[in-house]
Order: sequence, then C-alpha cells, then structure tokens
Amino acid sequence: MIRIIKRSSVKRSSLTAIFSSRTKPEMNASQEAHNREAFRQAVGNTLERRLFYIPSFKIYRGVAGLYDYGPPGCAVKSNVLAFWRQHFVLEENMLEVDCPCVTPEIVLKASGHVDKFTDLMVKDEKTGTCYRADHLLKDYCKDKLEKDPNLSAEKAAELSHVLAVLDDLSAEELGAKIKEYGISAPDTKNPLSDPYPFNLMFQTSIGPSGLSPGYMRPETAQGIFVNFKDLYYYNGNKLPFAAAQIGQAFRNEISPRQGLLRVREFTLAEIEHFVDPEDKSHPKFSEVAQLEFFMFPREDQVSGQHARRIPIGEAVSQGIVNNETLGYFIGRVYLFLTQLGIDKDRLRFRQHLANEMAHYAADCWDAEIECSYGWIECVGIADRSAYDLRAHTDKSGVALVAHEKFLEPKEVEKLVITPVKKELGLAFKGNQRMVVEALEAMGEKEAMEMKANLEEKGQAEFHVCTLDKVVTIMKNMLSISKEKKKEHQRVFTPSVIEPSFGIGRIIYCLYEHSFYTRPSRDGDEQLNVFRFPALIAPIKCTVFPLVQNQQYEEVARGIARSLTAVGISYKIDITGTSIGKRYARTDELGVPFAITVDSESSVTVRERDSKQQIRVSVDEVASVIKEVIDGVSTWADVLWRYPTHSS
Amino acid sequence: MIRIIKRSSVKRSSLTAIFSSRTKPEMNASQEAHNREAFRQAVGNTLERRLFYIPSFKIYRGVAGLYDYGPPGCAVKSNVLAFWRQHFVLEENMLEVDCPCVTPEIVLKASGHVDKFTDLMVKDEKTGTCYRADHLLKDYCKDKLEKDPNLSAEKAAELSHVLAVLDDLSAEELGAKIKEYGISAPDTKNPLSDPYPFNLMFQTSIGPSGLSPGYMRPETAQGIFVNFKDLYYYNGNKLPFAAAQIGQAFRNEISPRQGLLRVREFTLAEIEHFVDPEDKSHPKFSEVAQLEFFMFPREDQVSGQHARRIPIGEAVSQGIVNNETLGYFIGRVYLFLTQLGIDKDRLRFRQHLANEMAHYAADCWDAEIECSYGWIECVGIADRSAYDLRAHTDKSGVALVAHEKFLEPKEVEKLVITPVKKELGLAFKGNQRMVVEALEAMGEKEAMEMKANLEEKGQAEFHVCTLDKVVTIMKNMLSISKEKKKEHQRVFTPSVIEPSFGIGRIIYCLYEHSFYTRPSRDGDEQLNVFRFPALIAPIKCTVFPLVQNQQYEEVARGIARSLTAVGISYKIDITGTSIGKRYARTDELGVPFAITVDSESSVTVRERDSKQQIRVSVDEVASVIKEVIDGVSTWADVLWRYPTHSS
Repeated sequence: MIRIIKRSSVKRSSLTAIFSSRTKPEMNASQEAHNREAFRQAVGNTLERRLFYIPSFKIYRGVAGLYDYGPPGCAVKSNVLAFWRQHFVLEENMLEVDCPCVTPEIVLKASGHVDKFTDLMVKDEKTGTCYRADHLLKDYCKDKLEKDPNLSAEKAAELSHVLAVLDDLSAEELGAKIKEYGISAPDTKNPLSDPYPFNLMFQTSIGPSGLSPGYMRPETAQGIFVNFKDLYYYNGNKLPFAAAQIGQAFRNEISPRQGLLRVREFTLAEIEHFVDPEDKSHPKFSEVAQLEFFMFPREDQVSGQHARRIPIGEAVSQGIVNNETLGYFIGRVYLFLTQLGIDKDRLRFRQHLANEMAHYAADCWDAEIECSYGWIECVGIADRSAYDLRAHTDKSGVALVAHEKFLEPKEVEKLVITPVKKELGLAFKGNQRMVVEALEAMGEKEAMEMKANLEEKGQAEFHVCTLDKVVTIMKNMLSISKEKKKEHQRVFTPSVIEPSFGIGRIIYCLYEHSFYTRPSRDGDEQLNVFRFPALIAPIKCTVFPLVQNQQYEEVARGIARSLTAVGISYKIDITGTSIGKRYARTDELGVPFAITVDSESSVTVRERDSKQQIRVSVDEVASVIKEVIDGVSTWADVLWRYPTHSS
Repeated sequence: MIRIIKRSSVKRSSLTAIFSSRTKPEMNASQEAHNREAFRQAVGNTLERRLFYIPSFKIYRGVAGLYDYGPPGCAVKSNVLAFWRQHFVLEENMLEVDCPCVTPEIVLKASGHVDKFTDLMVKDEKTGTCYRADHLLKDYCKDKLEKDPNLSAEKAAELSHVLAVLDDLSAEELGAKIKEYGISAPDTKNPLSDPYPFNLMFQTSIGPSGLSPGYMRPETAQGIFVNFKDLYYYNGNKLPFAAAQIGQAFRNEISPRQGLLRVREFTLAEIEHFVDPEDKSHPKFSEVAQLEFFMFPREDQVSGQHARRIPIGEAVSQGIVNNETLGYFIGRVYLFLTQLGIDKDRLRFRQHLANEMAHYAADCWDAEIECSYGWIECVGIADRSAYDLRAHTDKSGVALVAHEKFLEPKEVEKLVITPVKKELGLAFKGNQRMVVEALEAMGEKEAMEMKANLEEKGQAEFHVCTLDKVVTIMKNMLSISKEKKKEHQRVFTPSVIEPSFGIGRIIYCLYEHSFYTRPSRDGDEQLNVFRFPALIAPIKCTVFPLVQNQQYEEVARGIARSLTAVGISYKIDITGTSIGKRYARTDELGVPFAITVDSESSVTVRERDSKQQIRVSVDEVASVIKEVIDGVSTWADVLWRYPTHSS
C-alpha cells in the first residue's frame, strides 16, 4: 500500500468509467448514476433499519466518519474475521500478533507517518471550516462537466484532465487551480486559504507529563515491523515467514464522505510476509497458478485497455506480476473474497501505475471491488522491498536483519573504505564526523568512481547528504580497496510482501453484492434479501412456531437448545406474525435457513434463496442445519435426502 | 464496576492477607512473598522468552504499560474471546455490537468520566516527574512496616490503618499524610507538589478544526448505552435483553506498575443486561442455582471472616446477592472462568463494601483471582440500576426508556404539576424557563411537600439546580394535584446489570494457574509446562518426524494438511533436535498433543500432562485429535481405544 507517498482514494478515472460501462453498454451514464444511487439507497436503508450499522453516538447527533456495527453487522464482521484467520493465519501457519493502538511518536517518525501522512486542506477564511482541497476541486470539475451546458469542448477536456491527475497535484498546483477557477467555501462562499498539509493521525499524549507525544496507529503494520527480530527468532531464525495482525486503525479525516467507505476508525487485517529478496518463489504457488480472474496490469491501464482475465500463473511467468510470492497472495486474496460472497465479475486486481507507487516498492496490486461508489480499493498487496525494516533499523539502531548461514565459508570480494581521520579532521574540523560517516556509507559503485577520480585527478567532489553540501576529498584523506574475505553467512534485510485488508470496505461491498429484491407472494411489494453464504450470515437460522401455542413453543425452545449445543446461532420468533412476514424479516437479515415448527415431531426447513422447503424430524434438524452450514453437505444433498414440502 | 466513584485497584487488605495465608498456614509472610516473587519470575521469563507477550515498541525501549501479544499469546487471547462469544453471546442470544474507540467529549461528559475518571497525582517539584500519590504513601507505609525494626506498635497500627483506608483518602488527606511523613520524590528526593487529580483518559481532537475534543474510550459500555433505543427496538421492544461488546479500552495511567495487570490499553468484554427494575428474576436461574463456589459477602469482610463456599441459589434466596439476574451472571462467570482453566480454589466472588460502591448501584460483586500479585479483580458484576441510561437521557434529550403495555388499561394516581407561566414570567423574567423546568421535574415527595407549604404558608423555598439558586415560589405560581388517570402502559428506565471482563487480567491469571515445572528425564533440570485446556491452548498439536528423513517429513506434511482441513492449529518441527527437547519446547507453549512420526503408516500421539502415548494410524490421527479437542471424546476414551506406547 502506498500509504505514505500518497493516500489511497476511491478512483473513478476515465479508465474506470470505460470498464464499468463495458458491462452495461446499453445504459447511458446519467441513467446508470441514477440507478446506482437508487440501489445504494435501498441497500443503505435496509442496513440501517436492520441495524447492520448505526451512526455512532446517534443520540448526540453522531460524529462524521464513525459508525457502530449493530448486532447483525457485528456478527458478519466477526464471521469475516474468523474466516480470515482460518484462510490466512491457520492455513499458512502465520504468526499472529496483537499490538496496541497507542503508538509513541518515534515509531511513526521512523515509518514516515509523522512527516508524510497528510492530506491537503483549505480553510474557510472567515469561519475556519476545513475542507479537503482535492475534494473541492474535484466537485467543481465534476459539477461543471455534468451541469454546464455552455462548456466548450476545450474546457471540458481541461477539466477532465484535472480530474485524471488530481491525485498527483502538489499543494501549489492545487492552490493555483482553486484560485484560477474561483472556488470558494461551499457552505458560505467565503474565500479559502491556500492548501496546506494536515496530518491525518489522531494525536494524544502518553502519561501525565505532556512530554511523550503519541498517536493512534494509522495502520497495524508497524507493530509487526518493530517486532521483526523476536518473530524471526520465534520462527527458528528461518525465512520466509509471515506475521499477521487484526486490529483497529485510525485516520483523522478532514471531512469524511462516502459513508461506510471513508471512516475515521476501521478494522485492518494485515499480513507482513518476510522473504529473502534473492528468492521470492513460493512453495505453494502451484496451488493457485491455475486461478483465472480479472487483472488490470499497468500497461493495459496506460494504453486504455480493459481489465482482462489472466491466469495468475501466466501473470507471474510473463513478468506482469513481479514474483511468485506476490502472485500467490493475489491468488489467495481472490479465493478469500469470492468465498465471502464477492461477485468475481465485479472484482479486479489493478496494478499501481508508476506514479502511484512508492519509490521503494517492487510491485503493488490492489484488489478493487465494484460497488455503487465505483471501484473501491479493498485490499492492497504490495512488495515493499526492505523499506520498513531499514527505516526502523536506522531509527532504533537495532539491526532488523536475517542471516543465511553458508554450508561452507564463501570467498567474497568486499569493499573496504578506510578514512584517514587526521587529514579529514584538519580539512573539515567540526564537520569531520558527518564527512566520515558519509564516506563509509558509500555504495560500491560510488566508491569505485571516487577511487578512479582520486587516482586520476588526486581529488574528488563528494556530496555529504547530512550537511547538504558538496566537499572536496583529497587523495590522502581515504583509501578505497577491494579485499577478498571468507564469509560464513550472508546478512541481509528481508523484503516484505504486504497484503493489507480494509475489513469494513470489504463488508460494505459484500452487502451490495449480496443484496437483491423480489416480489412478495401477492406481488404487492418488493422484499429485500441478502444472499450471504452461510459462512458469513449473521444468524444461521430462525426458529418459529407456525401458530402461537405452548406445545409448538416448547418444541421451538428445544430446537434452539440443540442449535446452541452444536454452535449454530439462531433467532427465535414467537410473535403471532404471519409466516410470510416472518420469512421476509429473516430474508432481510440474510438468514439462510428458517425452521418452522408445524408439528410436535417434525418441522419445515426453508432455504432462503430458492425458497425450497423440506420436512425434517425435530431430533435431526439441528444436525442437518449444521451439516449444510459447515459445508459437509450441500443444500442439494439435503433436498434429495428429505421429503420436500410445498408451502 | 465502580469505575467513576473510585478506580478499581489491586486489593491487598488485611482481609486478603488472612484469606491467602489460610491456605498455607505453615508459611510465614516473608517466605511466602519470596516464593510468590520467584514463581512470578519463572512464569514471566517463560512467557517473555516464548513470546506470549512482548513489551511494545521494544526496539525503541518500550512504553510503560503497553504490551504486545506475541504469537502464542495472541492465539490464547483469540481462543478466550471465541469461548466468551460462545458462552455468553451465543448461549444467551445477546446482541453484540462494535463501536469506535474514539469518543466525542459529550458522551463521556454525560457518563461522568470527563469530571471524575481521575487519579491523584503528585509532581517532583524540580524535575516534573509524576507519581500516583496513593502509590507513594502505600510504598512508604509498607516499607516502614516491613523494614523498620524500631517501629513502635502504635506507629505500626497507624500505618496499617492508612494502608487499609488508602483508597478512601481525599486529595487533602493524602497530601497531609505525605507532608506528615516527609515523603519525597523516590528518584531525586526532591519535594513533591500537593496531590491533584489527573484525568486518565487519552485525549485527542476529532477532525482538523481543533474544536471537537474527543477521548479514547475508557470502557466499551457507553457505546451500548447510547444505542439503547435502537437495540430495544431490534429486540422487538421487549425486556430483558443483553447487549455485549468486545474491544479495546484505554487508561492513561500515571505510572503503570504490576506488569501485565495494570496497562494503558487493554481488551474489555462487557455485557449490559437491561431488565425491568420491578422484575429481576431470570428464567434460567435454576440452571446455575446448584453451583457452589467461594463467595465473600460484605458482612463477612467487615466482621473479619473468610470467603466461604455458598451455593449461588442460596446466596440469592438469603438476600446476600441482590437478585436472580445478578446471581445468574455470577454463576455464568464462574463457569466461564473455571472452564478456561482458572483454579476454582483461587477464585472468589467478593461483594463491594458500602464505601466502594457507587451511590446508584444496587449491588456489586467482583470475580477476584488469586495470583502472585494477590487477589486481582478480573470481572466486575454490578447492578448499576438506571444510572447510565438516565445520565444519557438527561444529556441527549432522547428518552432511553422501556414500555410495558398493559393488557387492559390501569387506573393510576398521577402527580400533576401545572406551572402558571404568566405569574412565573413576571417573577423570574429571563430565568422563567429554568424555574418552570425544575418545577415540572419535581419528584412526588418533593412536590407534595411543596403543596403542603404553599397551602400552609402561601409560599415555599425552592432550589433550582440549573440556576444553583433558591427561589421563592408563591401559591399563585403553580398548582399541584393528584389525578386519577387511565394508563395503557408503564414507561420506565430499565436497570442495567453489567458483567465486565478484563480479558488481559484473566489471561495473565490463567498463565499463572496453568504453569508448573517438572524434572527432565535425566533429572538435570526443571522443565516448564502450561497445562492449558485444549480449548485455550495456543496451538493444539505439534507434528515432528522422529528422525530427519524425506519419508517421515512427507508423512508429517500430510498430517499437517489434514489438521488444517479439520481446523486444528499445529506447529511442525523438522529440526533434528532430540525428541525429548522437542517435547519440552512444546510443553512450554502448553501444546496439549504431540504427534511423532516414527513410521510411514502410524504415529505416536503423546498427551502433555500425563505424558501417556498411544499409537494411531496416519489416516486417523487428525480426526482423533479433533475429537479430543472438541470434547467429543476424552483422552481417557482415546487411551482405551488405541494401543498405548511406552516411550
């Protein structure tokens, strides 16, 4: 994830528009936007009415960008996380850790967040209200493009270009555009300040002294990096291994928009897979190599192509994906998301463009899911090379490195740089230490160039970065040579391959992909259904007596007890409401099975999507439901085994 | 939990001392303290060496009071939480929610935390270093008592008394004692400031304006209270129901001590059970009524008795425990803790003393677990009456109430207060609204007293709390009467019964209760073992080939795959280390079963505590282990079924 250089944002570039319209060529853009909006509202209403989520602190009018998971939402989340643990941590034998959210400044200084984790903000010069500068410019351009009938073709092209390069604009460029277009504060029309960076971390103070600044972590990854040494030891000093963490992360958004997708507190699930940079093969790659799904390589984006289905094995062998380990995780992420219920036709893996990617990253792919807001980045899968471990090694002075012991010692040629401190001291006085350190830190290429210069000209120009100054080094000030040495091991900083999951975003997209409506029996109204897989459904079944009487209620309670005993969550409904209404209620929560008690010895089990019904004895029903939920049998198996029932 | 009035602290009162020494009468206090310290070190070393926990940000020298859960610790935690969900949320059909940690000030103003969630602090007047005032006084007294040979009996009694009442001392009293004893800053011997309150919440700012103060929540409960209305609706407007939440909570401790027990960030699991204050019976109480465990009622503490075993049914029927619902949860907590592996003989339920309890609380019991630090409060189970819902109703203006619909309308006598606004307006001008609101808010007793005064004297004094002023009300300013009305429903604020679990503390105590040592085979050294139940063990089994060869390794990998398939976590160890050493390593992680591959068709399964071994075929081994882990069979069953193996 290019979390420091640039913040991920919801992309709706022209490329995206092409891709989306591809699937519905007959629909025009405004119709499609209208439909998306209507669909989003229908899903949103159902989610809020059934308490999948609740705006946090609602009785106090809420706080923008903070949401609660209500009972069914919380159950969905906990099912998603349990499956994540099973699919990644358990199946890959990862080392899961759990670190605090409160983080001291030094850690986030090392990671770069204190200096670079910012968004550009403008302020209403009179009221002080804050806005994200890029949002205002984006809104202006889109509004003009959509609503100004007198817009010249030339101007339209300009505005489209601004939208396309929005994420790359500097503070100065953004400010100039805002001035040029005369954009003012949306609420008051007051003039705006110049854009300036606002750090997106929630700041706090650790302990009572006020002398220890801290932040609420913006990601969980840093907790893993700082523990590398211990985790490497725990793994028997062997590479590769992966560590994982699930937990809260925080971003103090300037002005959160897009509902559940852009929030100030969210759950991340992150994996840091540490690997030898010289060997990024993966022993289990063959298990995913045949998987084929939509991929959107960098070149195809640049040349205006569509995403296309490529087997991941091919993508790696053709060099589209940098290495096997990265490819393996892309495949595993694909399996994870589609098993959750994400529609594979609205899922793509998009490679970062060169300008999106951090300078140190080897390769980076986002799992993007299409929903009514467009294509949403839900999982970032990045090869971050050695960046993070090096940053913490430098800052802490603790070497976060791995060792490869040679079976027998190897003879290697090593660069030896020996500064002559006396001469350097005479020449650079107080700056001597900086110059010495910079000389010692030279890479092989730079050192050999200097050696050539010194031998040829007797002196060389040298840039000392810690002084930000070019100094002249004389021949008598240092010796550079290559020596042969016997080495018993190789010491190196591992590369990190990081799949990072925005759990809340995945869940929101899952809601949209699972939602549909169907007419009620009498055709009077449209009923809502979530087609969650049983794995994810917040409640696995409902139990209701057909009519209100004591015998049926007792049977229902008995069934409830047996469901609890086998670990199946249920909801019991003993209201006198009609069966049809109770089915409708239960469908709206995405409950896959309903058990209707209509005799004292056997019951009717109804499957949510097919509405098919079977008769099962009271004694068997809990274990039958468990069988299907655990995937031991399919619904079709069960349908074949038990008598069906026409409702 | 009396979280506002007074912060829970680790009690080592004289009562505690009596109780603890009761079990080991032959040991003197200093010997016992020494043993405890040695035991704690042995456990702590093992935990840290095997990465059950890691001091957070260790490479940056850490932050006091912040710890990571390393791989085995994280697995234990996730097992404990999964069991908590099963035992409480699923079995009791609770509504689980998940709210943010970032909380706006108004919520914590309403709950009382902004004003009262404080500890008393003193500062080194020269260096500014901060200390908890009560800690300094406590250390002084204990030190004197333990180490001063010239202490008079009178002085000793005084110091013991100070220790006993430490938690009740005001800032002034604490300050006076610190002065009287001449206590100075421990590190510098500099003079100390007077004690003053320090708020224990981590403060932050929501959004970029700096105008929205927020805090990291000190508990998860408030998120549930503010959602009461929605949750009540979700539950079909029926009482009782319980909501639950698992999540991080934060306390910015002044100077954290006691390692893993007093930390700045921790996981809480809280239940808020909402119940009609007029009916606190519980339908499932009979299921726990026979349970018998150590209880320590208020009266027994005051009169110097010991905790004693009381069946919970008796405790409720005798009125020792206030009501059935509270009793039910005490029973369920007992089952939860002991099933986790907490020793039932080092677990007691201690009732809060009158001075410990919040004025609004009806009754309050702590599940305390004995460990090397003494008796530790790990679960608080409190009947908090209507306090929390009322506080948020008052602050938000949203009525957090329940309704009981009558089958037929009831005739009730109702107090009717009718202010004469014209007269009040003339008399109080701008303050009229405040006076009217205060008059309308009078309770029955207050109103009837005023009515009597007005009739008798023609006027009455009246305290308007919103003005903080006493005003004179004349007879012509209002009428007070009682009228008979037909009511169709009763509207009331539910009582809240709150079991609140400190997950980190429970886990720490579990570590101590599970730890033991036993001699190695050759008797040369003591080996560490954690006797975790399979439910909780971080890894369920290890797999290792007896000798390093390709065939055995392949068999081991095959078994690993079948374990993954049935969802059993494992660790594979293909190092050439001796079997004895590998067993020892695995015992130290509390892994219940080890599978040794010593042929290509069958393997040896060894149970951790008994060290008994059986022979099982390669094909069966995963399902046998699963059977025992899931509790379908016991180890004894399996032992009887398969041939044993002498090691």
